[in-house]
Order: sequence, then structure tokens, then C-alpha cells
Amino acid sequence: MALIVQKYGGTSVGSTERINAVADRVARMRAQGHDLVVVVSAMGGETDRLYQLATEIYDAPPARELDVLLASGEQVSVALLSMALQRRGCDARSYMGHQVHILTDNAHGNARIRGIDDARVRGDLGRGRVVVVAGFQGVDEEGNITTLGRGGSDTTAVAMAAALKADECQIYTDVDGIYTADPRIVSEARRLDRITVEEMLELASLGAKVLQTRSVQFAGKYRVPLRVLSSFEDGPGTLIKYEEEAMEQALISGITYTRDEAKLTIMGVPDKPGVAYKLFNDIAGANIDVDMIVQNVGADGLTDMTFTVQRADYAKAMKILKNVARAVEARDVAGDDKIVKISVVGVGMRSHAGIASTAFHALADEGINIKMISTSEIKISVVVDEKYLELGVRALHSAFGLEHSGGNAQ
Amino acid sequence: MALIVQKYGGTSVGSTERINAVADRVARMRAQGHDLVVVVSAMGGETDRLYQLATEIYDAPPARELDVLLASGEQVSVALLSMALQRRGCDARSYMGHQVHILTDNAHGNARIRGIDDARVRGDLGRGRVVVVAGFQGVDEEGNITTLGRGGSDTTAVAMAAALKADECQIYTDVDGIYTADPRIVSEARRLDRITVEEMLELASLGAKVLQTRSVQFAGKYRVPLRVLSSFEDGPGTLIKYEEEAMEQALISGITYTRDEAKLTIMGVPDKPGVAYKLFNDIAGANIDVDMIVQNVGADGLTDMTFTVQRADYAKAMKILKNVARAVEARDVAGDDKIVKISVVGVGMRSHAGIASTAFHALADEGINIKMISTSEIKISVVVDEKYLELGVRALHSAFGLEHSGGNAQ
Repeated sequence: MALIVQKYGGTSVGSTERINAVADRVARMRAQGHDLVVVVSAMGGETDRLYQLATEIYDAPPARELDVLLASGEQVSVALLSMALQRRGCDARSYMGHQVHILTDNAHGNARIRGIDDARVRGDLGRGRVVVVAGFQGVDEEGNITTLGRGGSDTTAVAMAAALKADECQIYTDVDGIYTADPRIVSEARRLDRITVEEMLELASLGAKVLQTRSVQFAGKYRVPLRVLSSFEDGPGTLIKYEEEAMEQALISGITYTRDEAKLTIMGVPDKPGVAYKLFNDIAGANIDVDMIVQNVGADGLTDMTFTVQRADYAKAMKILKNVARAVEARDVAGDDKIVKISVVGVGMRSHAGIASTAFHALADEGINIKMISTSEIKISVVVDEKYLELGVRALHSAFGLEHSGGNAQ
Repeated sequence: MALIVQKYGGTSVGSTERINAVADRVARMRAQGHDLVVVVSAMGGETDRLYQLATEIYDAPPARELDVLLASGEQVSVALLSMALQRRGCDARSYMGHQVHILTDNAHGNARIRGIDDARVRGDLGRGRVVVVAGFQGVDEEGNITTLGRGGSDTTAVAMAAALKADECQIYTDVDGIYTADPRIVSEARRLDRITVEEMLELASLGAKVLQTRSVQFAGKYRVPLRVLSSFEDGPGTLIKYEEEAMEQALISGITYTRDEAKLTIMGVPDKPGVAYKLFNDIAGANIDVDMIVQNVGADGLTDMTFTVQRADYAKAMKILKNVARAVEARDVAGDDKIVKISVVGVGMRSHAGIASTAFHALADEGINIKMISTSEIKISVVVDEKYLELGVRALHSAFGLEHSGGNAQ
């Protein structure tokens, strides 16, 4: 008898058949006595369809209205899932973000949750109802509809679990857990039974794409037990644990990558305060997320600075970069949108400096040139040419012995 | 410089091209200095698509969730129209029913408006914005989404015009006004420049289908000047006036009909108090609208009672009727769902008793058998076999000389 928040993504509710399958699982768990809050995304493809309509009208759709438009997608899926549950004799109620006061800031398209009024949800749970909540959407203080950005339904689920102090937040996806690498690229990749939240954070932000980064941060902050499972087959999935609970810890938990990157370089910048500030202030003002930033100071007192952005933002970022380059009298700018990022992730890395050299050696053996390097406490990321993606991931997976349970080398 | 509420139905916003055409008109009128509130329905076909999804899940979709589902349709169209207006440099804001507090009762699927909080709309108008409001939807006191039933967007527009004391409420449709009869059936039918609200009420409720009955009632109650126009071609449309303003009034303003009727009869009912109450109480409890009711008392102290309902409700109504028939020990029940109703409408009728005989004579001349008759102060309705629809409408249109402007006979 637990209080469980479940989240089903667009693929899991992509048709009425799949919605019925979700309702079967939810009704079964309700019959076992669990209290359930179910967060759903828009039906698969619906967000794209709506976005397409918007761009037919206006190539740069105004953010407030785009949020109104996109939020209609989840409205459809919560209503249909509630119907499917009631069809099974399982009392259920749907709520949109504004109805359960998922209060956010007013950053349309990328809003952050400030709070949830859980009274209504608790009231329904107390009456034995399953509560079905629209993911991805909230409402600002003035009552405008907001959306949380890509993968925002995960964040809704985690925030709801935190507000309700749920026993577990289960994220149902089209994969059955977190793997040591993408199984489509590395056939020896293994599913991890557990992973720390820090590792998950790196894996998610680095393109494992199973969970939205923000939702994992949120889960870590509020210690929400998070589990990734498949909505298509039964299984234990991967449980995301907090560090103090982790016991034996493999040095390296996995290799991940992202394809959707581009890098930009500004060259010959006078090395004085304020240049980086100006650049990233303008970039942030255009709502462009920057990932890696690398800077070198040369002998001549001039600096080269390179950073990566999502590939979709490349053109916009380059335009800003050129303006900044003119303003600060930089020598030149350059860019490359045919790059990928590959990362080695593991909590164990913290005390093992040799991992970097193992990684660089494995890539060099395959003749792969490293274009950028960035490290954090628990990851090492390299940027390489797009064409080396599969080869690089496989080489690293093998170099760290990830095909063997618990195995690793350095 | 007037304050105008405009309403565009599903056909008028059925594609992004048509939404652009609506935006062109709205932006043009805004440029002329008018203050504009625009109420829109869901894109044509969208409500059907959503209803189809619902019935795939549950053949009897729960009313609360069906409202959540259907309300998503207008959410899409208000967002798209606001985008199209902004694209034209016309500042615009969309609102769903709950955002402008279109407060209704909790009769899901057929809710009635109790009030509108117009402060937000007035605030936006004061800032020079066009306000785009989702038709058809509201919110009950507990914050649940409700819908107003078929044609509910008209009611939203009229209620909004009443709340704002607008100078005119313009209903844009796929016809260019109100005609003396359906032009598809009677080629001589004429567009009326003006019509009284009472006549409009009869025409709308009798199947002219241009405006929802409730919206016309609402307009009459609050004296909202209402105009029906085409969204596809320019023209003056038909202005709906209040009786004291009407001057010369033709006796008969038009012939109308409805196809979607069915009649049910309960025979041999003991003629004592409470029987009709029980029957119509059960019918109303099932949310079935009853149109005509005719009752005769026979010599034997037993009553036959016949009533008509919308054809879609026929099976449900028949089931209830059979139960009631058993309970009150009636002799038998009967029904016919292959009937239509044809009506002669005109304010002038009030003082002219001969109109009924002209109508009955015209139908008899064509060999059309009348199955039911019902009259009100300004209309005479007859129920006939479905196959006589066109012939009956033409015969009546001609009998009253409606092909000639201002002409009528009796």
C-alpha cells in the first residue's frame, strides 16, 4: 500500500489501444491498494502536429500562445486516460496544470515549477480516486498557461511526487531501464539495476534521453525515489538511488552521447573581464542553452573561447556570436555543427584520475581526434566528429569493461 | 469606433488558411479603431475527431472528462488565431473559458452561463489588444471544465457582448444571413435584412441552425444587437432587432424545418395527475430535450400523449418511455424516427388566425398528411413524413408569397 506517482510519455499513450494498456496497469495497481497519481504527456505525434499548425500561421510563434496551443495536447490525453480508467470501474479524475495550481514562473516554453497546491489531489486520493494530471504544463501567477519545455512531464511527475511525499516516482518509457550504453550502438550494453542520482543526472543531460535533466535534479533535491521502467513490458527497471545509499559502486556506470550538438568558437578576444559575461548574457537572453565552455589564453594576451549549444540553436547562436565579436573586436569566429559529444559517467571516477587517460587512449587507438574535452566530478566528455559516434561509444564501452557486470578497467 | 464581439464557427476557422482570413478581417477592423473581442469555436472536424477518440475508449464517455477533452479544441483555435493576429502586428491575447471566469453550473455537456468576470477583457481592450476567447467552454464553481452544448460558442459570444455592453455581436457563419426558407430547398428564398428576436428564436430552435436557441434567448434578455454574417463574403447579413424597434412587419418571415426529430407516443394512459410529470421528469433526468408535446383525452378516460425529441435521443427516450408505460400501466407505446418538422414563423401571426388554415390547405393540396400540430404565438409547426420535407417547405413558401419582398398571403 504505497503512494506512487507514475508518468507515461507520449509513446506510451500514443493511441487509444496504448491508453487502454496504461489504464489496465493503473487499474491493476489500484486494485492492489496503492494510491496513484498518473502524469501523462500528449499523445505521441500530437505536439509535432500542433507545432506544425503554429508554424503554418507564424514562423516565429509567440511564446505565450504557443504554450496555450501545446498545452491542449495533454488535455486530450488526461481526459482519455480518465475515461479508460472509469470504463474499468476505477474512479478517476483528470486535472490540467492550472487546476492543481502547478505554479511556475512566466518563462513561456521553458517555465520552472515554483509550487504545487496538493490539497485537491490529496482530497481525491482520500476518496479512493486515481488522479490523472497533465504533464508539461503549469500556470503563472497571472493565470497564463505555461509549459515546462522538452521532457517537462517528467518534471511534473517528480514535482508531484515531492509535493505528496510519494513512496516512489515511476517513469514509464519505451526502454526498460538505464543501460551502460545505447544498446542500438553497443550490443553488449547492460541494464543497470540501480544508479546514483548524480550519475543519472549526467546520463540524462548528456543525451541518454530517458529522463529530463531538470526532473532528475528535482528528484535529487527532494530525495524522490525515482524508477525508470518500460510501459511495454514488465520488469524492475532501474532505480535511481541517493549516494549515501549506494554501496558497492562500479567506477564507471555508462557511456552516453548526444548527437544534437554544435560548437562555436570566438577567436582572438582581448583577455579582459566582461567579454564572457557579454557573450553568455546575450546567448542566455535568446533562451539558448549552452553546454560545454572551454577557454584558452594564448601567449599574446588574446583568448579563444569555444562553447557548444543544441544544434537547433546553432544559427541563432552564430548570429549573436558575430555581433559580440564585432563589439569586442575579436579576430574571427568559427563553428561546426557536425559534431557529437561522447561521455564516460561514473560516481567512482571521483577518486580515480586514470580514467581520463584510459578514455583518451581508447579513442586514439581508433584514430578518433578529440576536438574538445570537458570534465566534471563524475564525467569526462569529449567532442568528436559526428562520423566517429558509434566507433567511439563502442571503444569506450569496451575499454571500461562495461559488458561484464560490475567490471571496469582503467 | 465601436466595441464589437465577433464569433467565428468551426467552418470559419477550419484550416490555417481560413484562420488567416479571419485574422485579416479582424486586423482590418481593429485598424479602423474598433475594440474587438473574438470568440472562436474548435477547428471544423476537430470536435468530431475528439469525440471519436473518446468513444474508442468508452462508448458512454463520462461527462466531466468528455468536457475536458472537447474543450481542448477551442484551446487550439484561440492560440492559432492570436498568433495570426500578432503576425499582422495586431496585439492579441487568447483566453480559455476558465481564464476569463465564464462561470457555469455543473451540468457537464450542457452547462448554463451564470456570469463572466470581464475585468481582464476590459483591461486588455484598454491596452489596445484584441481579445480572443474560446467559445463553448466555461468553468464551474469547483474549477471543473464545462461545455455549453451544441452551438455553445454563439452563447459565449452573446454572453460576452452582454457583459461588456458591446455595441454589436456579430455571428460569422457559412451563410450570409437569415433566409425566408432554406435556399437549397426553395430557390426563391430571400435573405431578410432584419428579423425580430422572437422570430429568430423560433427559426433557430426550429432548425434554421444558424444560431443556437440559447444564444438568441440570451441576446433577447440582455438586448444584445445581434447580426448574422458570412465569414466568406462581405455583406450586411441579417440584423436581429427587438420588437419595439420593428416597424413594418411582414406577417410571415419564413419557413423552417428540422430533420433531426423523432416522435414517441404512449397510449392508453389513465388520465390522472402525475403521469405526465413522471414521464417528463425521467426524460429530463436523462438530459433529453423534448420539443413538441401533444395530448388528447379520449372518451374512455384514457389519454394518448405524443412528444418529439432529437433523433439521436430516440432510443434512450424509448427505453424510458417503456419503463414509465409499465409503471403507469399504459396500454402501449409507439414511435417513429422518420419524421421532420416544418414551421411557419412570423410575428405578424399573432393577430391573424387564418394563417393556420392557409398552411394546412397548402399541405393538403400536395397530399401531405399532417401527423402532429403545435402552435405558439408566432409559429405553426407540423410534423410530417420525412419524404415530404422538400415538397412541404416549397408549398408553404409559395402559399405565403415569401418569394416577393414584403409579400404575404393567407
